[in-house]
Amino acid sequence: MRTDAFLDRLISLALEEDLGAAGDITTEALVPAEARGSAELLVKERLVLAGLDAFVQVFRRVDPDVRVELLATEGAELAAGAIAARLHGRLRSLLTAERTALNIIQRTSGMATLAHQVMAAVKGSRLRILDTRKTAPGMRALSKQAVKAGGASNHRFGLFDGVLIKDNHIAAVGGSIREALRRARANAPQLVKIEIEVTTLEQLAEALDEGADVVMLDNMDDAQVRRAVELTAGRVPLEVSGGITLERLPRLAVLGVDFVSMGALTHSARAMDLSLEILQTA
Amino acid sequence: MRTDAFLDRLISLALEEDLGAAGDITTEALVPAEARGSAELLVKERLVLAGLDAFVQVFRRVDPDVRVELLATEGAELAAGAIAARLHGRLRSLLTAERTALNIIQRTSGMATLAHQVMAAVKGSRLRILDTRKTAPGMRALSKQAVKAGGASNHRFGLFDGVLIKDNHIAAVGGSIREALRRARANAPQLVKIEIEVTTLEQLAEALDEGADVVMLDNMDDAQVRRAVELTAGRVPLEVSGGITLERLPRLAVLGVDFVSMGALTHSARAMDLSLEILQTA
Amino acid sequence: MRTDAFLDRLISLALEEDLGAAGDITTEALVPAEARGSAELLVKERLVLAGLDAFVQVFRRVDPDVRVELLATEGAELAAGAIAARLHGRLRSLLTAERTALNIIQRTSGMATLAHQVMAAVKGSRLRILDTRKTAPGMRALSKQAVKAGGASNHRFGLFDGVLIKDNHIAAVGGSIREALRRARANAPQLVKIEIEVTTLEQLAEALDEGADVVMLDNMDDAQVRRAVELTAGRVPLEVSGGITLERLPRLAVLGVDFVSMGALTHSARAMDLSLEILQTA
Amino acid sequence: MRTDAFLDRLISLALEEDLGAAGDITTEALVPAEARGSAELLVKERLVLAGLDAFVQVFRRVDPDVRVELLATEGAELAAGAIAARLHGRLRSLLTAERTALNIIQRTSGMATLAHQVMAAVKGSRLRILDTRKTAPGMRALSKQAVKAGGASNHRFGLFDGVLIKDNHIAAVGGSIREALRRARANAPQLVKIEIEVTTLEQLAEALDEGADVVMLDNMDDAQVRRAVELTAGRVPLEVSGGITLERLPRLAVLGVDFVSMGALTHSARAMDLSLEILQTA
Amino acid sequence: MRTDAFLDRLISLALEEDLGAAGDITTEALVPAEARGSAELLVKERLVLAGLDAFVQVFRRVDPDVRVELLATEGAELAAGAIAARLHGRLRSLLTAERTALNIIQRTSGMATLAHQVMAAVKGSRLRILDTRKTAPGMRALSKQAVKAGGASNHRFGLFDGVLIKDNHIAAVGGSIREALRRARANAPQLVKIEIEVTTLEQLAEALDEGADVVMLDNMDDAQVRRAVELTAGRVPLEVSGGITLERLPRLAVLGVDFVSMGALTHSARAMDLSLEILQTA
Amino acid sequence: MRTDAFLDRLISLALEEDLGAAGDITTEALVPAEARGSAELLVKERLVLAGLDAFVQVFRRVDPDVRVELLATEGAELAAGAIAARLHGRLRSLLTAERTALNIIQRTSGMATLAHQVMAAVKGSRLRILDTRKTAPGMRALSKQAVKAGGASNHRFGLFDGVLIKDNHIAAVGGSIREALRRARANAPQLVKIEIEVTTLEQLAEALDEGADVVMLDNMDDAQVRRAVELTAGRVPLEVSGGITLERLPRLAVLGVDFVSMGALTHSARAMDLSLEILQTA
Repeated sequence: MRTDAFLDRLISLALEEDLGAAGDITTEALVPAEARGSAELLVKERLVLAGLDAFVQVFRRVDPDVRVELLATEGAELAAGAIAARLHGRLRSLLTAERTALNIIQRTSGMATLAHQVMAAVKGSRLRILDTRKTAPGMRALSKQAVKAGGASNHRFGLFDGVLIKDNHIAAVGGSIREALRRARANAPQLVKIEIEVTTLEQLAEALDEGADVVMLDNMDDAQVRRAVELTAGRVPLEVSGGITLERLPRLAVLGVDFVSMGALTHSARAMDLSLEILQTA
Repeated sequence: MRTDAFLDRLISLALEEDLGAAGDITTEALVPAEARGSAELLVKERLVLAGLDAFVQVFRRVDPDVRVELLATEGAELAAGAIAARLHGRLRSLLTAERTALNIIQRTSGMATLAHQVMAAVKGSRLRILDTRKTAPGMRALSKQAVKAGGASNHRFGLFDGVLIKDNHIAAVGGSIREALRRARANAPQLVKIEIEVTTLEQLAEALDEGADVVMLDNMDDAQVRRAVELTAGRVPLEVSGGITLERLPRLAVLGVDFVSMGALTHSARAMDLSLEILQTA
Repeated sequence: MRTDAFLDRLISLALEEDLGAAGDITTEALVPAEARGSAELLVKERLVLAGLDAFVQVFRRVDPDVRVELLATEGAELAAGAIAARLHGRLRSLLTAERTALNIIQRTSGMATLAHQVMAAVKGSRLRILDTRKTAPGMRALSKQAVKAGGASNHRFGLFDGVLIKDNHIAAVGGSIREALRRARANAPQLVKIEIEVTTLEQLAEALDEGADVVMLDNMDDAQVRRAVELTAGRVPLEVSGGITLERLPRLAVLGVDFVSMGALTHSARAMDLSLEILQTA
Repeated sequence: MRTDAFLDRLISLALEEDLGAAGDITTEALVPAEARGSAELLVKERLVLAGLDAFVQVFRRVDPDVRVELLATEGAELAAGAIAARLHGRLRSLLTAERTALNIIQRTSGMATLAHQVMAAVKGSRLRILDTRKTAPGMRALSKQAVKAGGASNHRFGLFDGVLIKDNHIAAVGGSIREALRRARANAPQLVKIEIEVTTLEQLAEALDEGADVVMLDNMDDAQVRRAVELTAGRVPLEVSGGITLERLPRLAVLGVDFVSMGALTHSARAMDLSLEILQTA
Repeated sequence: MRTDAFLDRLISLALEEDLGAAGDITTEALVPAEARGSAELLVKERLVLAGLDAFVQVFRRVDPDVRVELLATEGAELAAGAIAARLHGRLRSLLTAERTALNIIQRTSGMATLAHQVMAAVKGSRLRILDTRKTAPGMRALSKQAVKAGGASNHRFGLFDGVLIKDNHIAAVGGSIREALRRARANAPQLVKIEIEVTTLEQLAEALDEGADVVMLDNMDDAQVRRAVELTAGRVPLEVSGGITLERLPRLAVLGVDFVSMGALTHSARAMDLSLEILQTA
Repeated sequence: MRTDAFLDRLISLALEEDLGAAGDITTEALVPAEARGSAELLVKERLVLAGLDAFVQVFRRVDPDVRVELLATEGAELAAGAIAARLHGRLRSLLTAERTALNIIQRTSGMATLAHQVMAAVKGSRLRILDTRKTAPGMRALSKQAVKAGGASNHRFGLFDGVLIKDNHIAAVGGSIREALRRARANAPQLVKIEIEVTTLEQLAEALDEGADVVMLDNMDDAQVRRAVELTAGRVPLEVSGGITLERLPRLAVLGVDFVSMGALTHSARAMDLSLEILQTA
């Protein structure tokens, strides 16, 4: 398995906040150190599965000898009752890692499932739905992977892989779209595109004129979006952001914009119901 | 400010996943290193505020010279339009820390707000509503504080500060409530209580007989809960768990149980709408 | 082998302070990188063995290929001359890890041996002897395990798994036992008991009246302890602390208290004489 | 204050094992966050004080705002009843850091006090008494400083600042003193001396002949030591090791050896009785 | 000063490899802890200064009380004999940090000076000279800043902020430029451009046809570069790489390519001669 | 393979600055996760190879399943066209680790090759050429090993394994060679030698008189060096430092000094041309 330093740190943090130096006192009081057993990862509601790698890593971190048999793949749509994985090893290890592993996979599957739902709403169109940087602290990569597992797409990963000029940046340079874009073009790294957020058609015209690579239409209603598409005439990709609902998506899909971005994909997805079932031992 | 090693690690992780070694290329392209400015933390929907300390820490980590003026306190109920804090310092620092700080306070305020709602549903009763360990990885302490800020109560913090014997532990010892409790009493640490999860009245009787300190009634309907309360007759506190909805809470409040625990408080609260507004500079 | 993040950090620290980045210059000057050999862990005085896991971990950290054969178990009573373990692997690795591994097992075996001695002094009684938090920095879990290996019991692990109100806390709330206990009951976590330290019978009465779960009798002589036991009449467990000597233990054992706690178990145990003997190579 | 990365790591580890992510539940239940107070570091038996810097660092790590007033200096001999330091700051911070800070200074003062005792036994002679690498894991520098504070001297710090060829190294190269010294001279770093352990006069002669810089006489009785001093005739410094008791030290002092090394200085010193006294607040 | 977690880690590593846990034994043997003094950063050959921030950070890490007065700015061209900074503080801290701080600023100034030389060779042209990822481990950001301080430009920072398809990637997809570009376009992140390396004009034609955003001409001679410029006709920027010498730069400057990239800027710049001079103290 | 905590940290830092949390977007866009392949480490100019262990570690850190076949040994002299190693494993892992691994081995081989050249200049003499502490941050051990691989010798490793009194230390004690040496002898650790830097013959006489173990002649010309050798008459080893060129080395070799130290070995060696060649896959 390839190594991921950031995921490593998140899992360490999660296990250490749950275990401290004192450990899992329930399990150690009840279960002998040498006892071995098996468990199943049980799906308890229809969902799109995501986060399997991290789920496995949690058990491995607690105990490198835990063996995991995957019965489903990242991005699979599963019905209630499905068994997504089987685990074998020291019973203590299975019990100690259980909650931390579930805390991750329930959230990542929640995001994948929500991404799947929004994609269903624009099925057949070429509209791509993007996530944002509105992820839980430490869960950026996990969240981005979950969104992809659900069929939606990733916007930039962080502050380093794309110039995205937002309202606060424009305010910081004194309010001028033109000035913001000029500075960006002068200083942006070599292989990175420049996107800018606009709230009016005048700003859009200015952005097109000043050479933005992508334009984000912020909080525009359908009529405004329609006029923005006409004005742009395919010169650059357009992204719609703000005030997005499941109902509005099909309308946006036919307006001809390229992207819609939704913070809710990663900040407000509900956790899915998945549980670990220890198979009863003698 | 007192130091918290775990929060420190979470904030480091969040900033590093967002910045990498390359940093905030938009801000560095647009804003001069020496430019200074101010920003406001704007509340955009009615909420209970939580996570202020962590919000401040994020800015301090990016730049120890950022000065934060708090205009609201942890646990305050705020209306849309309220300004919760003002920040002053290098513009680059304000812009770079913005998203990471919001990603935390939007989530913690979401949990506090949900906790506040569920407590409103049992107002006037002595029923206490508890959180669980179903928190995002690395956010255990932040989540527990948010739940308290919203007026609900904390169950145990982790695996180390309470013995809680769940179905999987019982399965691991061969299915016997009695055996599980015996082992727990023999081995549990000195100052820690023993709680056990039961699914039937027979198990409840066995748990009471074997000296459990607290009993959790798992997935029982109201009728079962009523009989469990009668059977227990005040000998130990009872906690109801599983299948809890906002509508059911008032009914449980009158049945005489002591606690209801709800995973949703920390795993499925919606992020609140809070934003950072840079005050436009000349 | 299950992973322990705290032990990991302690072993890293110990190896790094001993090796720095420059390494073991004696061994590298004398022993070729490819040379392999064996060594024995030799017991040089009668002792109770503790800390085997950590001993093994030190060698594994230096070199994952070192193979350890355990010839004795945690908690075993061994005579001088016994071989507790055999190690096989790169000679450089055995020599480099030797001192750090011994520095741990000599101390943990010292604590286990002392615990064994104090338990012998109360043999036949139901009195339990407890350790305290007076452990060397970083050695909390190692010390607690050693005390158990020697047959004594563990008090709370840290500041998080039990409320223990001591003289300084009482001073901090203005000197009132009653006030201290009220605040504790209002705010203590769900599954944690409340113990309070008292120095007079009046304070004991107040503590019982205010609902303490356990009471610690601090620095009381035998006569005071006797009256405390009578006054308490079995309502809560009593712990005696302060001024404990090996000679006094049998008297305390018959006075009817439940626990005696002894800081000396972990803060002043003598290191045991154990050595690593490299088996001479051709 | 100058920064020490290793001490930093040890203090972090000690605080984290004591606090976990859940924190000091007693103090948080009893003492309001804003309450401030003072405390004294009280000496409860005659001792030589050592470890003040680390003691202060523990409080500073918990809370950078704690102010410490030192009333005694490193290495001072203090009588029971002396106040070594006064602390002022948040009461919560003082209470939370108390045990971890004491766990260090009680041990370092124990080592300094023992070092002072052994130096008293050789007073008036030019014999220097050395510590060893037999220190608690993570406490190497603290232990070395404590030994110096007590008036004894430091042997090499770790495996990197001196070649010390011990019995196990000799075994590893096939048993030859000569071969061991040859390899050491060929490969030892530029500014480092070579010491070798011998157990017989024949080995001593071989070591002198092969150009050792220092020779350690291991487990020799007084008569053997006398003959070793004669044989060496001042060509290199001699160190006596093994079987050292307080009673034997004056005899060794007149035999003309240069150094005696004692593992007990750091591995078996008793913890000194020092306590923190919170000054009662209204 | 704004915080940089990666620079922090590099400086920690550098100081710890130089100091270990034993510290600066020369300085501690010679200079009293309380002695204070001043020092100057002396320029000993003509150079372009870079790395000032890191230079300051090293001293601050050793001792937060060291005060640094900057007498020159990042990117300044200085003659031999110039004083670039003055430092004041504990003499021990100045001496201990000296070498680590110089080891950084000598290298970063070396890169800036070389960058300045290569830019002088293309003065007056619009050709931009780029660095590469061929930086010393841990010095990526320091190296990129130094190149900018010298007047050259930065290529992508790492593997995450630009798609750059090199010969090994093309080999990995079976040798097809077309297939490589198709996969890149399908999967590349939202705001990132796609550059591809070609070695023949046929490959260039294929790359242009398949929609590359930038093309790198690898190891082409001047004649080939000229034909590549004609073939491309301004459709995408062209970067020349491989076999670049100072003499060839002016010729490339007139051929009409947009970028030249040079690994030597960061992998083979000579360290500049800068020293720290302690001002003699009474 | 034996573990090296410092190398571990350097490799982590290098990989994390190159990958961030977002990873290698080119490779992930082009190469399927399951694709496997092979690569060769190709030598492209005559060189002395050094840094093989670290090269292997980089791949192992990215992916423990990468298998490396070494075809050359540390310190081998190789001609252009030689294959130094073959690697097999996931193609993604080979591509992602490539640059970081090369960035190390190109530099370490550069230092070994330069060390080899300077040793060739003094061939036949007993003069030893030493490195210094002028190494890139984090690369101390790698640099020292490379110098040895090239046939030159190591001076002290860091600030902890030798007392080296330089001009700044002498200035710090008020300018007196005698005072500096007295303090050093009084306080230096047990097994460490004392070297002092002198710039005049008067200082040399003073250093010899005061018992220095080694003397460094700083920036002396050949005539001065000759007189220093006469004056010293073999009492202590002499080291020449400053103003060393390849041409001057043979002259120094016959003057009778013991050591010459050259910062350039580690601070200004050119990176060698080595590349990784992915073997084309179907």
